[in-house]
Amino acid sequence: MKPEKSLGNEGAIRSLIADWVSALRAKDLDKLMSHYAPGVVLFDGVAPLQMGPDMYRKNWEGYFNWFPGSVNYETRDLKITAGDTAAFSRALVYLTGTTAEGKEDGAWMRQTIGYEKIDGQWRVTHEHWSMPMDMESGKVLTDLKPE
Amino acid sequence: MKPEKSLGNEGAIRSLIADWVSALRAKDLDKLMSHYAPGVVLFDGVAPLQMGPDMYRKNWEGYFNWFPGSVNYETRDLKITAGDTAAFSRALVYLTGTTAEGKEDGAWMRQTIGYEKIDGQWRVTHEHWSMPMDMESGKVLTDLKPE
Repeated sequence: MKPEKSLGNEGAIRSLIADWVSALRAKDLDKLMSHYAPGVVLFDGVAPLQMGPDMYRKNWEGYFNWFPGSVNYETRDLKITAGDTAAFSRALVYLTGTTAEGKEDGAWMRQTIGYEKIDGQWRVTHEHWSMPMDMESGKVLTDLKPE
Repeated sequence: MKPEKSLGNEGAIRSLIADWVSALRAKDLDKLMSHYAPGVVLFDGVAPLQMGPDMYRKNWEGYFNWFPGSVNYETRDLKITAGDTAAFSRALVYLTGTTAEGKEDGAWMRQTIGYEKIDGQWRVTHEHWSMPMDMESGKVLTDLKPE
């Protein structure tokens, strides 16, 4: 029996997320990107409005270069909704990186992920990252904390 | 036969979105909110990080008051991924409103919606709206256009 079957769909997606997070912490771009379907459409925290996996990979590469120290990803309120062939998850994510000077920079973001089961394997086909805006200043609110 | 069955899951969700859009154009808050499950968790374009349906409804009420003229919602690249009990959609949305002075204000946003089939009816249980940020200024980019 394949592990994915015994875990059930929600468990398989939880396992995908755990593997993605371990790839992020290891700054392993190949492992990170292995969870995305070739046609994935990403709404990243930065422009443009939407992008494919090549640009998204470059954004993570830039992030890893910006933070030569450790990077980390912690979730709050992770909720996975899984059907037989389609699923989505949402979470508040505290994404942090440590600069060459040893300073840790981080912000709480919102992350929504869409998954499809393709040839029996769950793959990410959509992902949306953002921070909410402040109506007065037009700036992104990088210092919000979950209640 | 219920219309939802004959349309299939993707068709039923397309119909839900069309009904939601007609409620928005009519500024009909009750009809708009009827598509959300009571426990829906929303990541809106504005703070806080996440909210429930009551605050989300108030945000739309504020939007409708801000724009006494017509409001509109047009999508580009709408993609619905529907399974048997879970589904998600993504779209680029051009959301516009007309002020008391007759000026139309609008911006392209990204919208991701999560759906669950509850008692045989599709309901929205998650929604995520955003605009990407500019890394230099920290501001939300309100003037982006799809390529």
